[in-house]
Amino acid sequence: MFAAGEALAVESARFAAMGWMRGTSGNLSVVLGRDPLRLAVTASGLDKGELTAADVVVVDADGELVGKEQGKRPSAEAGLHARIAAVTGANAVVHLHALSAVLAGLYWPDGVELHDLEMLKGLGHDAHGETVVIPVIQNGQDMREQGDAFEEVYLPPTLRDNEVPVLIIASHGMYAWGETLTQARWHAELAEWLLRFTVETSAPR
Amino acid sequence: MFAAGEALAVESARFAAMGWMRGTSGNLSVVLGRDPLRLAVTASGLDKGELTAADVVVVDADGELVGKEQGKRPSAEAGLHARIAAVTGANAVVHLHALSAVLAGLYWPDGVELHDLEMLKGLGHDAHGETVVIPVIQNGQDMREQGDAFEEVYLPPTLRDNEVPVLIIASHGMYAWGETLTQARWHAELAEWLLRFTVETSAPR
Amino acid sequence: MFAAGEALAVESARFAAMGWMRGTSGNLSVVLGRDPLRLAVTASGLDKGELTAADVVVVDADGELVGKEQGKRPSAEAGLHARIAAVTGANAVVHLHALSAVLAGLYWPDGVELHDLEMLKGLGHDAHGETVVIPVIQNGQDMREQGDAFEEVYLPPTLRDNEVPVLIIASHGMYAWGETLTQARWHAELAEWLLRFTVETSAPR
Amino acid sequence: MFAAGEALAVESARFAAMGWMRGTSGNLSVVLGRDPLRLAVTASGLDKGELTAADVVVVDADGELVGKEQGKRPSAEAGLHARIAAVTGANAVVHLHALSAVLAGLYWPDGVELHDLEMLKGLGHDAHGETVVIPVIQNGQDMREQGDAFEEVYLPPTLRDNEVPVLIIASHGMYAWGETLTQARWHAELAEWLLRFTVETSAPR
Repeated sequence: MFAAGEALAVESARFAAMGWMRGTSGNLSVVLGRDPLRLAVTASGLDKGELTAADVVVVDADGELVGKEQGKRPSAEAGLHARIAAVTGANAVVHLHALSAVLAGLYWPDGVELHDLEMLKGLGHDAHGETVVIPVIQNGQDMREQGDAFEEVYLPPTLRDNEVPVLIIASHGMYAWGETLTQARWHAELAEWLLRFTVETSAPR
Repeated sequence: MFAAGEALAVESARFAAMGWMRGTSGNLSVVLGRDPLRLAVTASGLDKGELTAADVVVVDADGELVGKEQGKRPSAEAGLHARIAAVTGANAVVHLHALSAVLAGLYWPDGVELHDLEMLKGLGHDAHGETVVIPVIQNGQDMREQGDAFEEVYLPPTLRDNEVPVLIIASHGMYAWGETLTQARWHAELAEWLLRFTVETSAPR
Repeated sequence: MFAAGEALAVESARFAAMGWMRGTSGNLSVVLGRDPLRLAVTASGLDKGELTAADVVVVDADGELVGKEQGKRPSAEAGLHARIAAVTGANAVVHLHALSAVLAGLYWPDGVELHDLEMLKGLGHDAHGETVVIPVIQNGQDMREQGDAFEEVYLPPTLRDNEVPVLIIASHGMYAWGETLTQARWHAELAEWLLRFTVETSAPR
Repeated sequence: MFAAGEALAVESARFAAMGWMRGTSGNLSVVLGRDPLRLAVTASGLDKGELTAADVVVVDADGELVGKEQGKRPSAEAGLHARIAAVTGANAVVHLHALSAVLAGLYWPDGVELHDLEMLKGLGHDAHGETVVIPVIQNGQDMREQGDAFEEVYLPPTLRDNEVPVLIIASHGMYAWGETLTQARWHAELAEWLLRFTVETSAPR
């Protein structure tokens, strides 16, 4: 738990410095166990640039607090972290309020189409010859509904070949995930670059 | 006083690094006492990225210097800090020259309308279903008049449900406040993000 | 000399970190004496983010090297530093390749008009009620001609009340100056903010 | 080798902090010997902001691994590094995913024309009186073909006087090179500034 807390604190400070966790926004998690599912998630209501290794809570598959945490609590969004970890098999999930993701979610509510960009290789796709879609769902406060919406866009028949480790919540921010916290970071960084590029070249202004 | 000066110096350096206190612009304050009102305010004419714990002065409810300060003086803007602390009950006020705030004040002089953004929760509102207005007042050099203008836009009947801990001074910058200096920081960071988003999506260019 | 070199090295690193001294571009100077005029100027051809206190040379009123400097040489631009120091009485001059200055020089070759902005107070003007012009001259490689062009725009009869401690060289960058190196920094920071604001709101795109 | 690895790690961290090596993208190299050609290249699949002196591999003129490297491997792009070093005589090559380079490659697939900018001197050209072209090639996964495309645009008869130490790969990123790693850095920084300026002033939006 301490190691997980330390890793999440360091990673949070990194993302905060990039401007993607303004105020107390955003949260990060790592999977501690699968049977039953347990995640360490950054505690709610704290400055993400100043977390310590103790600013972490353990949640279950519904994002509910497990055990006693001395006054710390998970964000409601922990439920979506857990769903993503369960559905995708990811061991780490990051949720960030990057401006480009919210812009893209507004401009392309049916998903953000990307193609012919070398950076797509970093998301597990070909640089050329396919259209990759970063799925978008509408924002909501009920994490069970958000999770269902995620499952619908993550692997519908028409997108089955376009799976990406990134989800945009319109009006809100983005999620990215990976086998490790470092890989989740890479996916987030690449997606943010790709969204910035797409907004710059294609926004309906 | 030393603790207040140290906290203000650290916070100033943080905001200066974000580019929101260029030159010697901007100032921060914390309430030291309520009866009578006393605030510690960053001293005027210094680089806000290089303050020490001693670069602070104490002012009263009119922003006037209290006691002897060995050559340091408050900015005239201390008067507006004091008014905001008195009217809102905030214990900390930050005044920053963020570009997005001045752009928004120019484009929407009657107030900046925000809606359907998760970030609004950080300013004490619902993410969806209401229109939140960040009030704007015109710039001036008389802090009593600025304070009166603030009171008019802060809680007029039509805005009573839209109270936000942020004020834009057109042609000038923004104020944000909170129960603590850290909460004032969060409100400033969130407002700056929201204003950047709104300028990017809705500026009349 | 060592103290001057140290101050210039620290200040250069600060400006380099802001992206205003890319490659080996830009240079800073401080006046060492007035009779005859002598300036310490950052040496040419070095990375401005990695200077040491020894990376400085002494030049005269024409920007020519004074004494032996063990292989280091001044930039040709030292001549314009010296002219600005002579004409304005400034004790420190900074020359930076800020993008907003080059954009503004392209869009408004006859000078950049500013008005109704609180930041103007930091350049020695009123926030409201006057139009301040940041003068622009065309780029050139002959520093005597550049100096003459500077004198023409700095204090022509029509601009006499609009004097500002900033000059834009179109296609090139900006100069800012002040009584101290710190004040020159403030003038540069404020001018850059004002130019960024003006490009954002008024560029003929 | 250790010295080369250390220099590449430090330089990578610098570029990563500028946002030009997001995810694991980009790579840097220095020439170790010419006969036969050997380059030290940053290892593939690692975070470029966290490399150590050991995270480097040696490749030959085809970008193929030389010797045993304990599990580390070069990026396929090492082949293009080697070709650039062979053709230009450069001792250092940097490959970066700067957003402005990818934007410019999209807008001007036949090359990016630059003129009348002081910064051009840093790329070995006159500030005024000539048109400098940063060549663009289309993206591809075969480094031999990429190298051939580079040679075609680097020194065709019509561009012979316009040689620049920079290449844009459309949909991908940029390469810059120099006599030393520091000079390659300067060329990259200057080119990025010039491309940002050109996109800002001339993009067909």
